[in-house]
Amino acid sequence: MVARLTPDQKEILILMDAAKGLEVPSETLEAEVKAFFDSAPPLQNSDGITQQLDQFIQRNSSPSANGKARRIVCVTSGGTTAPLEQRCVRYVDNFSSGHRGATSTEYFLKAGYAVIFLYRKGSFQPFCRSLPDDPLLECFKPIDESNIQVCEAYSEAVKRAVVDHHTAVTGGLLLKLHFNTIFEYLQMLQIIAVSMRCIGPRAMFYLAAAASDYYVPWKEMVEHKIQSGSHLLDVKLVNVPKMLSVLRKDWAPLAFCISFKLETDANILLKKADAALEKYKMDAVVANELSSRKEQVVVVTSAEKVLVMRDKSRSDNDVENPLIKLLSDKHGTYIERPSR
Amino acid sequence: MVARLTPDQKEILILMDAAKGLEVPSETLEAEVKAFFDSAPPLQNSDGITQQLDQFIQRNSSPSANGKARRIVCVTSGGTTAPLEQRCVRYVDNFSSGHRGATSTEYFLKAGYAVIFLYRKGSFQPFCRSLPDDPLLECFKPIDESNIQVCEAYSEAVKRAVVDHHTAVTGGLLLKLHFNTIFEYLQMLQIIAVSMRCIGPRAMFYLAAAASDYYVPWKEMVEHKIQSGSHLLDVKLVNVPKMLSVLRKDWAPLAFCISFKLETDANILLKKADAALEKYKMDAVVANELSSRKEQVVVVTSAEKVLVMRDKSRSDNDVENPLIKLLSDKHGTYIERPSR
Repeated sequence: MVARLTPDQKEILILMDAAKGLEVPSETLEAEVKAFFDSAPPLQNSDGITQQLDQFIQRNSSPSANGKARRIVCVTSGGTTAPLEQRCVRYVDNFSSGHRGATSTEYFLKAGYAVIFLYRKGSFQPFCRSLPDDPLLECFKPIDESNIQVCEAYSEAVKRAVVDHHTAVTGGLLLKLHFNTIFEYLQMLQIIAVSMRCIGPRAMFYLAAAASDYYVPWKEMVEHKIQSGSHLLDVKLVNVPKMLSVLRKDWAPLAFCISFKLETDANILLKKADAALEKYKMDAVVANELSSRKEQVVVVTSAEKVLVMRDKSRSDNDVENPLIKLLSDKHGTYIERPSR
Repeated sequence: MVARLTPDQKEILILMDAAKGLEVPSETLEAEVKAFFDSAPPLQNSDGITQQLDQFIQRNSSPSANGKARRIVCVTSGGTTAPLEQRCVRYVDNFSSGHRGATSTEYFLKAGYAVIFLYRKGSFQPFCRSLPDDPLLECFKPIDESNIQVCEAYSEAVKRAVVDHHTAVTGGLLLKLHFNTIFEYLQMLQIIAVSMRCIGPRAMFYLAAAASDYYVPWKEMVEHKIQSGSHLLDVKLVNVPKMLSVLRKDWAPLAFCISFKLETDANILLKKADAALEKYKMDAVVANELSSRKEQVVVVTSAEKVLVMRDKSRSDNDVENPLIKLLSDKHGTYIERPSR
């Protein structure tokens, strides 16, 4: 396949084709997955990450007061990037503030879960949602030349952020791991899933991160910055293999798995959520539309579709409050299922 | 021009062509600039921004102790995004932490300048470079259930950040304005340049931001999220017009203008810096190579090339320290030039 631009055109043309909807045969998927991981740059400090995970999972696996071991959820959050150059100057990014993941983490902790928070660097952090973008500069002021204090208006929010965050981390209930690229994200997700395999159905995956659909295989990537002048240039992006299938089938076959479907067009949303549920064998798909996602979501399972809306009369009135309650209940039923 | 992929190919192909190096005739550039601004979504709160700028410029234009009015520099910082969809889920981003712009701002303030800091949301802020990514969560700890304090190790850095930042902003010497997209960046740069026109050669532009080279005209952009499945899709990105020419010629003809050239390949860097100096009629181009950019840069002017290196023996040992001194000197000479 060759596509050319005439030399006087000043354009980039991105052609996206996918021809999906067609089921990818599993031998093709396996080859795609292998190609993806083979093409990825090696993950920094993967041994250290595995060690942190093992300790965290072990600590949260002894039976607690009620005689049961704590459930553990891996919450993924924020968008991933797909670099266009090895020494990365340009990349394609997926929009996601990480608000959903950060908020959900707080409610999972409240619901008694231990949380592995796999987040995009710079995205929202748990307990910090009500703070301004630059909390240090915007919430503090000098009293004199060498002393500072919290501004009155943020006093409570700042205190809660620091205290609650610190309590969760030092209490061994919150483990934070960060990524930037789609390569890092999927490599880390695999390590987490494999580490959590030992806890069987007590594990939940809550995949709120917006993973890139396309990537440039690392080895085919140009080393240097793409020159905007001079020559005709083409960069090939290929589909990121559908890792949800692999997670479900190979990495974490016993875990309770929840994926997300975000669309800007409400008309196609539920249909796409249904398709994802079926195709990737998820236990639930959370369907959300970009403009109303902080007000309501639909939890799609094979048995039902449940509209979850935020309760404006409460102080903890996030849509994630009833959402996590519902998912935690479903997870409880899943764990108790006799067939297991 | 039509380029097609066969239906079973799962690829995006990005073709970049530019055919530049060829001079764009000025009537073409004018048309391109008009097309860019016509295609841009309207800037939010442009009246408010103009008002802030006018107040800031006026406040810094009365003669100070030495009988001269303060110089004003506009420092741009961070990368811009080019949205691929109107309700933006995906975009092409340019890498830039904003470290250069934030650091330079501190040294410009030290050198007596008033600074308009036009920065990408989430990029580095002046006086905060030595702090961790999440200063609130990483620099503070609880003393008890409802009181917090700064950790010993960060005590001085946190204090300096809050005090120095607050002093510059409330003292009327630092005005911060933020952008995300290439549309916002260039619209704001135009407003700033036009507002600063009244101070003539006392104005400096220090264009450290990494502006996108390509954009999708807003009106040609798809409204909804690009579907990764289903159909063949093409997105056209066109060249962002070379606004440096317009800044120099129309927006700020009397200002002292400095642009940046960043490359990952040292072999082509100086040649490209020379070309930019000539083509855009800059007063200086700061040439930097990605891997060594915190150690050294080359200031390229029509008269000379000066290698500027950081002085490791000092406490304020950033390369921006000697860089801003050099540029401030050159700006002084420029202001005093008899022909003006």
